[in-house]
Amino acid sequence: MSDTALAAPRSTVHVALEGRGYDVEIGPGLIAGAGRLLVPLGARRVGVVTDENVARLHLDPLMASLEAGGLAASSTVVPAGEASKSFAVLEEVSNALLASKVERGDLVLALGGGVVGDLAGFAAAILRRGVRLVQMPTTLLAQVDSSVGGKTGINTRHGKNLIGAFHQPSLVLADADALSTLPLRDFRAGYAEVAKYGLINDAAFFRWLEDNWQEVFEGGPARTKAIAASCANKAGVVARDEFETGERALLNLGHTFGHALEAAVGYDDKRLVHGEGVAIGMALAFRFSAELGLVGADQADRVAAHLKAVGLPTRIQDVPGDLGDARRLLDLMGQDKKVKAGKLTFILARGVGQSFIANDVAPENVLSFLTSELSS
Amino acid sequence: MSDTALAAPRSTVHVALEGRGYDVEIGPGLIAGAGRLLVPLGARRVGVVTDENVARLHLDPLMASLEAGGLAASSTVVPAGEASKSFAVLEEVSNALLASKVERGDLVLALGGGVVGDLAGFAAAILRRGVRLVQMPTTLLAQVDSSVGGKTGINTRHGKNLIGAFHQPSLVLADADALSTLPLRDFRAGYAEVAKYGLINDAAFFRWLEDNWQEVFEGGPARTKAIAASCANKAGVVARDEFETGERALLNLGHTFGHALEAAVGYDDKRLVHGEGVAIGMALAFRFSAELGLVGADQADRVAAHLKAVGLPTRIQDVPGDLGDARRLLDLMGQDKKVKAGKLTFILARGVGQSFIANDVAPENVLSFLTSELSS
Repeated sequence: MSDTALAAPRSTVHVALEGRGYDVEIGPGLIAGAGRLLVPLGARRVGVVTDENVARLHLDPLMASLEAGGLAASSTVVPAGEASKSFAVLEEVSNALLASKVERGDLVLALGGGVVGDLAGFAAAILRRGVRLVQMPTTLLAQVDSSVGGKTGINTRHGKNLIGAFHQPSLVLADADALSTLPLRDFRAGYAEVAKYGLINDAAFFRWLEDNWQEVFEGGPARTKAIAASCANKAGVVARDEFETGERALLNLGHTFGHALEAAVGYDDKRLVHGEGVAIGMALAFRFSAELGLVGADQADRVAAHLKAVGLPTRIQDVPGDLGDARRLLDLMGQDKKVKAGKLTFILARGVGQSFIANDVAPENVLSFLTSELSS
Repeated sequence: MSDTALAAPRSTVHVALEGRGYDVEIGPGLIAGAGRLLVPLGARRVGVVTDENVARLHLDPLMASLEAGGLAASSTVVPAGEASKSFAVLEEVSNALLASKVERGDLVLALGGGVVGDLAGFAAAILRRGVRLVQMPTTLLAQVDSSVGGKTGINTRHGKNLIGAFHQPSLVLADADALSTLPLRDFRAGYAEVAKYGLINDAAFFRWLEDNWQEVFEGGPARTKAIAASCANKAGVVARDEFETGERALLNLGHTFGHALEAAVGYDDKRLVHGEGVAIGMALAFRFSAELGLVGADQADRVAAHLKAVGLPTRIQDVPGDLGDARRLLDLMGQDKKVKAGKLTFILARGVGQSFIANDVAPENVLSFLTSELSS
């Protein structure tokens, strides 16, 4: 690692959780500087978990940095893609961490996107009933969303993230340089979650994104600002509601629809990646809100227009191939975690930046809305 | 369920944990009375997990009681035995609970011994990132130990309980009638954990057990007293140290040796069950303490004499078949969770009721002790 790299300007966002608060560091050079940044955590061993793609790009400099920092590091590389969020891969990762004798005071380090973060985070949560976790997200999606807040988990045939744990990291290192190796499609998918924070509770941020999204895509200060603003927004929500008993559900804006779409394509990321599902889901949430008379159709159009402008999908029909009918999509929502007593919970909106939790959405209303969307 | 059954005298032990305290109810008729006892928890669905042996004896009356109590109940039956504490069975149980649509406000109910409690408890901990758990232990071991305190988990090829979670139950129902169907060997194995509480910090209880163990084995008030005293002792330790950062490690008296022996027989419960491993482990811990000059040999003899009197094993050679040499047993201890920086943690004793945590036991001392035990 170079001293110059670590000396470059960084943003720090603190997640204020009683007894287990932690920092999110955002800036360039953090992968190469990891060894030094982890010293304060006082571990002896670090079990790195990553995927094949990320390993090719970033594993060697990371391992060199950890070893230079005096840490005994081992690594486990899983196949890239959502299919690794399975019991089978979780078992492999767990056994690999045990084989490398990661003990209670040691660290699991997740180097990669949301899949690696969710999988390695869950492995850390259950290894010896819980060891500390460092998240080192290498995608925009993971940097602004999944690496912060402690949600970890795997998928089952019944749906996504239905098995998992709340396990807060001890540190998040978001290396801004890592995003320069991302394919445009992945960057766009992550951008959906950036826009989400504006739509939930920050109309000014959404307006700023409408004006500055090109610069965010190009990199530089606007990108760093967008990442830090997103992390700060999420940190606030998580600090107020760690276990999703209330406000935190707002972060699911677009996700109930989105998860159903992901399930409908069998988690085939050639057809749909998570952020694209969220983009369509947010557009649907605003149109559904308009149909329920909660918000003007102009606001729903504005949301869809911005997502479309950056190149994101906004309609169910934007997903290639057959997804089944409205009834099938509704059934796939029923297995989402956000079900209570037969009613569906949706995040709906009264305007941009004015989202709210609706706990008692009747399945019939959703069915008729989806039917009209599919035939539009 | 009969009103008479529930009206019979019960002992209640409260586990005082900030924000998630719960009661342990001990008495007759609790399986048949479960439907009524669960009403205050306000769930709609109960996903019962049990094993083949327990299902034959207790599942029908339990399901009838739950349904009479207005609860939608489903059940999953796993093979009996330690082998069910695996990733494969965990995945099956998780999928079964998802298929029966156990939601966040619902309950997982573990009906059975320690294996079922650990497995179902872990499934509850990770299902939708955590749903509530009711423990209904049907063995003495589970009633006095594993059902109280929130430790859950499965085994891997690297050792026992190396993957798991802390997940406190919302209620524990210990049906005293259920113990009358236990084979003597299982009752004895559970008794090892009862005696453990005396050895840790309650010399008067150990003395009482020396005088009254026959009545505990026969049933009736002495048995109930022994169970309640054990639960109360454990509840106190757990309330003071939920996550085993200190005092709770005392509950591992006999377990570091015991787990190594269990691993050495490949968790073959024909050769050794957990409580037998603990009995041998406690005898070894006292003899090791004597060898280190911490306690008189007469105290070690007293402990072994009582365990032997009730029919429990006290020497490594009491386990049938070959266990390997001292080096192998030591290596199996090294993968125990209780390792820190290459030193071994043992619970040693300065007397009956005077156990303490020794964090810095040198592996060489253990090796020489085991070598002498194996050649004695």
